[in-house]
Amino acid sequence: MIHIDWRPNKNISKPLYIQIVDYFKEKISSGDWPVGSSIPTQRDLARKFEVNRSTIVAALDELKAEGILEGRGKGGTKVINNSMTLLSNIQPNWQSYIEEGIHIPNLKTIKRINELEFDTSFIRLSTGEASPDLFPTEKMEIVLKEVSRNINNLGYEEPKGMLYLREHISKFLKKYGIHVSASSILIVSGAVQAIQLVSMGLLQTGSTVFLEKPSYLYSLQILQSMGMRRCGIPIDEEGIQGNLIPKYIKKNRSSILYMIPNFQNPTGIVMSQRRRKELIEICQKEKMPIIEDDVYRELWIDKPPPDPLKSLDKNGLVLYVGSVSKTLSPGLRIGWIVGPEPVIDRLADIKMQTDYGSSSLAQLTVGKWLETGLYEEHIGYLRKQLYIRRQVTIDLLEKYFSDIATWKIPSGGYYVWVTLKDPIMMYKLFDEACKIGILLYPGYIYDSNHNQNLRISYSYASMEELKEGLYRLSKLIRKLKGR
Amino acid sequence: MIHIDWRPNKNISKPLYIQIVDYFKEKISSGDWPVGSSIPTQRDLARKFEVNRSTIVAALDELKAEGILEGRGKGGTKVINNSMTLLSNIQPNWQSYIEEGIHIPNLKTIKRINELEFDTSFIRLSTGEASPDLFPTEKMEIVLKEVSRNINNLGYEEPKGMLYLREHISKFLKKYGIHVSASSILIVSGAVQAIQLVSMGLLQTGSTVFLEKPSYLYSLQILQSMGMRRCGIPIDEEGIQGNLIPKYIKKNRSSILYMIPNFQNPTGIVMSQRRRKELIEICQKEKMPIIEDDVYRELWIDKPPPDPLKSLDKNGLVLYVGSVSKTLSPGLRIGWIVGPEPVIDRLADIKMQTDYGSSSLAQLTVGKWLETGLYEEHIGYLRKQLYIRRQVTIDLLEKYFSDIATWKIPSGGYYVWVTLKDPIMMYKLFDEACKIGILLYPGYIYDSNHNQNLRISYSYASMEELKEGLYRLSKLIRKLKGR
Repeated sequence: MIHIDWRPNKNISKPLYIQIVDYFKEKISSGDWPVGSSIPTQRDLARKFEVNRSTIVAALDELKAEGILEGRGKGGTKVINNSMTLLSNIQPNWQSYIEEGIHIPNLKTIKRINELEFDTSFIRLSTGEASPDLFPTEKMEIVLKEVSRNINNLGYEEPKGMLYLREHISKFLKKYGIHVSASSILIVSGAVQAIQLVSMGLLQTGSTVFLEKPSYLYSLQILQSMGMRRCGIPIDEEGIQGNLIPKYIKKNRSSILYMIPNFQNPTGIVMSQRRRKELIEICQKEKMPIIEDDVYRELWIDKPPPDPLKSLDKNGLVLYVGSVSKTLSPGLRIGWIVGPEPVIDRLADIKMQTDYGSSSLAQLTVGKWLETGLYEEHIGYLRKQLYIRRQVTIDLLEKYFSDIATWKIPSGGYYVWVTLKDPIMMYKLFDEACKIGILLYPGYIYDSNHNQNLRISYSYASMEELKEGLYRLSKLIRKLKGR
Repeated sequence: MIHIDWRPNKNISKPLYIQIVDYFKEKISSGDWPVGSSIPTQRDLARKFEVNRSTIVAALDELKAEGILEGRGKGGTKVINNSMTLLSNIQPNWQSYIEEGIHIPNLKTIKRINELEFDTSFIRLSTGEASPDLFPTEKMEIVLKEVSRNINNLGYEEPKGMLYLREHISKFLKKYGIHVSASSILIVSGAVQAIQLVSMGLLQTGSTVFLEKPSYLYSLQILQSMGMRRCGIPIDEEGIQGNLIPKYIKKNRSSILYMIPNFQNPTGIVMSQRRRKELIEICQKEKMPIIEDDVYRELWIDKPPPDPLKSLDKNGLVLYVGSVSKTLSPGLRIGWIVGPEPVIDRLADIKMQTDYGSSSLAQLTVGKWLETGLYEEHIGYLRKQLYIRRQVTIDLLEKYFSDIATWKIPSGGYYVWVTLKDPIMMYKLFDEACKIGILLYPGYIYDSNHNQNLRISYSYASMEELKEGLYRLSKLIRKLKGR
């Protein structure tokens, strides 16, 4: 995605199109836009440079004449030469490095959302994050004052993370019935990193990862990049159907189960107490470890969910993952993994080789949130706000979507999982929604079989935006259905 | 590494050894110490529990009698059963998960240092980090006040990181002759993560990574874990001998060069201007990209080093890596990669899949350090302090080491690379140094051929500790030599 930071220079007499040619040459000769880069369409360029399309056409013609760019029309325009230095073909062939690198790129839909979320004109029904309105500015000021009073060194931390924070997490987890010492806790930079560390540290090429179908984990490429197999297990109203797992287990192949027991992403389902017990029994019998991703636990609206699987686990079966991203702020990038000590030691060692630990400043800050009790206080406030937001969203869905879709009212979390009644081209819907300024996650990124679903987040957009966004979206769906 | 947080309960009449047995059972039954875990030696346990060795012997005998532990003597004692739950062999076989996981564990020496550095009784001649004495507490308070005034949301950031920080880095880099826009910069959690992202994003199994011999990069396992080949190129007083690279390049195999041009880790060498130009030419001819790890640049003591290779690079050949870890604080975990936009886009995408970006709090904080000019001010102070520390260290080396070792006076950075005159068993030296409370990095972790070297850091220990540590170390070397 080429970024344009050009401004016209009004102090020189050079025509605008030549100024743009010079800007292209500078970007290309510095290697910022290497040979092989795609140039946006004329329309896009006109918008980005804030000039008439005819000016862009003149500039591109000039660059093509000089043999720097090539192509037009459907195939797109590309940088083919770096002729200013008369050293064409000298750059490394970055494109082949990019294409052959081990890690699989994000799904295109996700890449696009990741970029467009920073265009403020969009209504974000996509974002799994609390609205800026809900950010506890004043409490954060109090905490940062505490932090700056306690900061007299900010070095590398122990491999498992700052002891002060781990001790507070250990205390905090007791309220869910999880009793572990600080030495069984590893601080990580959010739940995604927890998954990455487990895949690099405990799994191998060919390992099987069981997961809910649909699941957030289908939207990440880390497992596939490392050559692991994903095996989806259906989910019903009580959660993942654990009894189906044994028949998929292959002998001589290590496996692990990843699941989100509370307010599952994307379906919002809460696993029943009965199902939790059953799942622990099944996994014990199969000697299969579980990654319990519990980052949504605190976001209950109606009543607290049952205790974690980890609290039922007497055999070190469960790696329990939590974070403050959904409750306080994803920008802190602080989460944790709880598990048997040798496993935590192993993951800590890999974390050290990966990024040398999470930010001490962020660790200290989260520790203070916990210690002062402001964390619990803020969550209480957040729950009340989510109650209101959920109500508004359900009311809007009833008003605009009742003829075209169904949904279950989530008892917590951030998302409503909407099922369209009639088939529709979801790629098309996503695309058209972008064009009218609405971002949402289509079901197919969570599982290709759920391509008639939308994940609608009620946590981020303002009330006004929720109203406007859902109204526009419902109109768009009706329009596409008609085709 | 089993962690003991046991305290005797004086309010109950149970003998101490039974209390210790109960503690073991709790740890084992909860899965914290799973079947297969090694138990420390009796002496270690006595120290950790702060009881007599006879109490430990009694407790271990009891646990063995119950069939929970097994073994003694050289082979060590292990957890073999989890009999309290009468569900033995129910846990997953964590040991095989750990052993078969993709990522190679850290070298034992490094693991040991990573752990022992948090034992305050040690003199740390190992640590590549500025001393707590040098931490700018007051300036950090000012900056955090600024931060808390500007914090009204702390969400996920753009894939490349916070624009505000990238813009300030873009401005800062101009002083080295690096002219890039914010869109060519990716924020990372330190230089180690930069290496990890490059290896996952641009390299493949079988790729060759050229590096200095010796090099810090030899101490990391990330490349080997991903199946990449490392190829060491000798380094002389002017830096890496780039002219030797072409003969090692294999056709049809992608390759990249990793190097530290300034105050190289571990040798302290600064690459000459002449060598820089030559290297750029060679790599251009070979179309081989360069990772320029320049985290030590600002730590010059005598005079600023030549401009970065990146400033000579007109063809997008160089990925330039910097960070605030060595200059300000490693605990912020903020660094950056500068490179061609499509490459930065690729690495940003993988970073999103790895940890969803670096801490926004830390990014905002580093941005404020740059914006206020306090960063430059602090570096000026740091340089003066490093001048003093280097002087003290060189004086001490002359006093205690002149008969047993040689060294070059570094013109900046944190390290003196000491070469012992007579061969010595370096594993033994490391081990014995640990026993007398001294931590240092032996040369073999940077290259197996440099096993008669020590990396002595003068940045971390206090003046008193430097004196005491170097004195004790010189005595130890003489003692081991005599054997």
